[in-house]
Amino acid sequence: MTTVQLKQKSMLGLKDLAREEIEAILARAAYWEQEPSKVNPVLQGKFVANMFFENSTRTRFSFEVAEKRLGAEVLNFSAAASSVQKGESIYDTVRTLESMGIDAGVIRLKPIGVLAELAEKIKVPLINAGDGNNEHPTQALLDLFTMRKHFNSLQGLNVAIVGDVKHSRVARSNYWGLSKLGANVKFCAPPNMKADDLDVPYVTIDEALGADVVMMLRVQLERHESGMIKSAEDYRTHYGLTVERAARIGKHAIIMHPAPVNRNVEIDDELVEHPQSRIFAQMQNGVPIRMAVIERALNG
Amino acid sequence: MTTVQLKQKSMLGLKDLAREEIEAILARAAYWEQEPSKVNPVLQGKFVANMFFENSTRTRFSFEVAEKRLGAEVLNFSAAASSVQKGESIYDTVRTLESMGIDAGVIRLKPIGVLAELAEKIKVPLINAGDGNNEHPTQALLDLFTMRKHFNSLQGLNVAIVGDVKHSRVARSNYWGLSKLGANVKFCAPPNMKADDLDVPYVTIDEALGADVVMMLRVQLERHESGMIKSAEDYRTHYGLTVERAARIGKHAIIMHPAPVNRNVEIDDELVEHPQSRIFAQMQNGVPIRMAVIERALNG
Amino acid sequence: MTTVQLKQKSMLGLKDLAREEIEAILARAAYWEQEPSKVNPVLQGKFVANMFFENSTRTRFSFEVAEKRLGAEVLNFSAAASSVQKGESIYDTVRTLESMGIDAGVIRLKPIGVLAELAEKIKVPLINAGDGNNEHPTQALLDLFTMRKHFNSLQGLNVAIVGDVKHSRVARSNYWGLSKLGANVKFCAPPNMKADDLDVPYVTIDEALGADVVMMLRVQLERHESGMIKSAEDYRTHYGLTVERAARIGKHAIIMHPAPVNRNVEIDDELVEHPQSRIFAQMQNGVPIRMAVIERALNG
Repeated sequence: MTTVQLKQKSMLGLKDLAREEIEAILARAAYWEQEPSKVNPVLQGKFVANMFFENSTRTRFSFEVAEKRLGAEVLNFSAAASSVQKGESIYDTVRTLESMGIDAGVIRLKPIGVLAELAEKIKVPLINAGDGNNEHPTQALLDLFTMRKHFNSLQGLNVAIVGDVKHSRVARSNYWGLSKLGANVKFCAPPNMKADDLDVPYVTIDEALGADVVMMLRVQLERHESGMIKSAEDYRTHYGLTVERAARIGKHAIIMHPAPVNRNVEIDDELVEHPQSRIFAQMQNGVPIRMAVIERALNG
Repeated sequence: MTTVQLKQKSMLGLKDLAREEIEAILARAAYWEQEPSKVNPVLQGKFVANMFFENSTRTRFSFEVAEKRLGAEVLNFSAAASSVQKGESIYDTVRTLESMGIDAGVIRLKPIGVLAELAEKIKVPLINAGDGNNEHPTQALLDLFTMRKHFNSLQGLNVAIVGDVKHSRVARSNYWGLSKLGANVKFCAPPNMKADDLDVPYVTIDEALGADVVMMLRVQLERHESGMIKSAEDYRTHYGLTVERAARIGKHAIIMHPAPVNRNVEIDDELVEHPQSRIFAQMQNGVPIRMAVIERALNG
Repeated sequence: MTTVQLKQKSMLGLKDLAREEIEAILARAAYWEQEPSKVNPVLQGKFVANMFFENSTRTRFSFEVAEKRLGAEVLNFSAAASSVQKGESIYDTVRTLESMGIDAGVIRLKPIGVLAELAEKIKVPLINAGDGNNEHPTQALLDLFTMRKHFNSLQGLNVAIVGDVKHSRVARSNYWGLSKLGANVKFCAPPNMKADDLDVPYVTIDEALGADVVMMLRVQLERHESGMIKSAEDYRTHYGLTVERAARIGKHAIIMHPAPVNRNVEIDDELVEHPQSRIFAQMQNGVPIRMAVIERALNG
């Protein structure tokens, strides 16, 4: 039973997380959001390692701020500056850091399925900061938090997620989280970017504009080379949230994006800080969400 | 009015800084230099982000030591390890870190003019750690501090700045700071490295040796490829501070250099730690200067 | 005399360290291993810089954990992200950090002989985190600690070190440390990887399996290109610790490796976490060893 409790403290994804757990995290994030003290010694003397086997600015920073606001000691590891480049396996690296006494690990990695295996073998709780196309649970949690701040409840909320859902861990984690909280998720994607693994209805971009939440995904411009997209301009024309399209969303609706944005590709420059945009609010909400998730991992 | 006060707390350059402000910073740095406690909790619970969109060892380190000596929480961001490589704009990055709750940002970046725009849009104070050829105010402040420690007053002091002044933010910030404090600045530069934007008299290298302060600038050896300099050896022959030339400076005079030095190019190896050199003293003085500037930004 | 005492606080290698000093460090590491508090403020307000002119994941992390467990302020410098790439010398970098007020430096660098010169010129204590093929004293200390935990005493212990001893700083530091503590060291190496500078007897791989400690060295797979090894498979066949060979070591014996391992090259995958393997225990022991070494440098 102890094992099961330990597993619960990890945060591998929202697919297997109970609705009550999600609610508890959102409630705790609301507490941290209100906390006036920037640094709170609830995790004093605990070591948290951020292990990024894929580069990231914002996610790593957001975790680091969260960890330091909880008073934890932070260790940063990025693959680019490490011997992982020389073929050291992810498991060996994580196991090494565990041996050195870390109390929890935040991990981003490319291969899918590795994280679940790792969590079986590693004794300290692990927090998924993005694993391939699979899940990015803290991103979805901060998205849920952002929506709930605006709409109070997610029950019956219509959320349209637009873009390359096939390769998007953000789309997948949002799908699981939103569904559990009673929202209706619809996808809008180019034919070659649909997620065959999920049973989600598809809508056109015009239909997507009728949702309560229009969540745009980042275009991986590298896909251009593989022929998946013709050009940035073509993508914008067919799937971008242009100023013209934004004028057609509901007055009560909000625009979201996990960032970083490709301005004038999936979303027009003028919309990033539009009154209906929640893009920078999402980033702001990431800190209390991650405080709640890390605290749960170590003290939960 | 509040806005104006907030702007004052940023440190974008010395050009627009009042003489009294400079004096106040130098005085506060003298206080920190004498402070026996290494870590002082004046900025406890404050988050300072070092955002380096250009690589730097010494400047980033110097700021980090200063921040930690003030008890701040430090976040390090360098573009080389970040998604800025993937085309994310500087503004979006800084705005993101602001959303996450940083209290101040130290920023180094290449494009000129961007910093002033950023400071308009970003609510937290920004400290310029070098922006293109424009300004490097904390370097000039530590230079002023170093000169004042030796000469007591800068009034009437003759300072010769030797090298590629055209591309030097160090030369520009020193020019503004020195002029405000009453020193006489002269430049000595190859014909194709003169700063047309500044009204400063030029002298020959022989004349420069007669100054009270001989400040050598770092040669960007990359300029060799563009044909701006013929060779390192040729540069040394015409503009380098050789042992022979150093013998001709006044006994009361000092040698300065912002570092890192190209030994045996702009300055001979034997002179770097010469009794009249203040090169490592400059680095030492950088810490109390930056403590004063950061403290001013957050508590000023 | 003060100078001599200061030198003693640096940790450049085990070759010149007295047996009593080694014993004292091992004893202090045993104390830190038992200490229940993760963070202890014995070095509060002290700044330690980790200066890695060669990349490393585990060693840098291990030092960082040790430093933070002692309450020190940590500064991380890696050459990959620095102006050292632009030709700045190692001396200038270390001297710069010293000027900025660091209290101790942990340093890894490639060229041999540079560290001793540095320690002459730099006033703060330096800790060798690996210098070329020369020494890696904290690795050897943690290896001694690991062996002593298992065997209680090293007197008369037979230790076989297998692999490219010629290019191994781990082998050299272990040789010096083990010899001083009374162990018998034997090397096993391909003919072109023998260490001509050390007077150590060589044994065959079969003979090596009879030792109390079988310490496998990491194969630098880059050596393949230079023709020093034929192939990873060939190396494994002749010098690897295969499952078959491991079955022939004594029941009381232990397997060690400084890590990171090349699984299925110098050691078979199944053996890394074998009951007789101490590989992850070595990493665990690295933290208290480094706490003892850093504490000695600053408070010793």
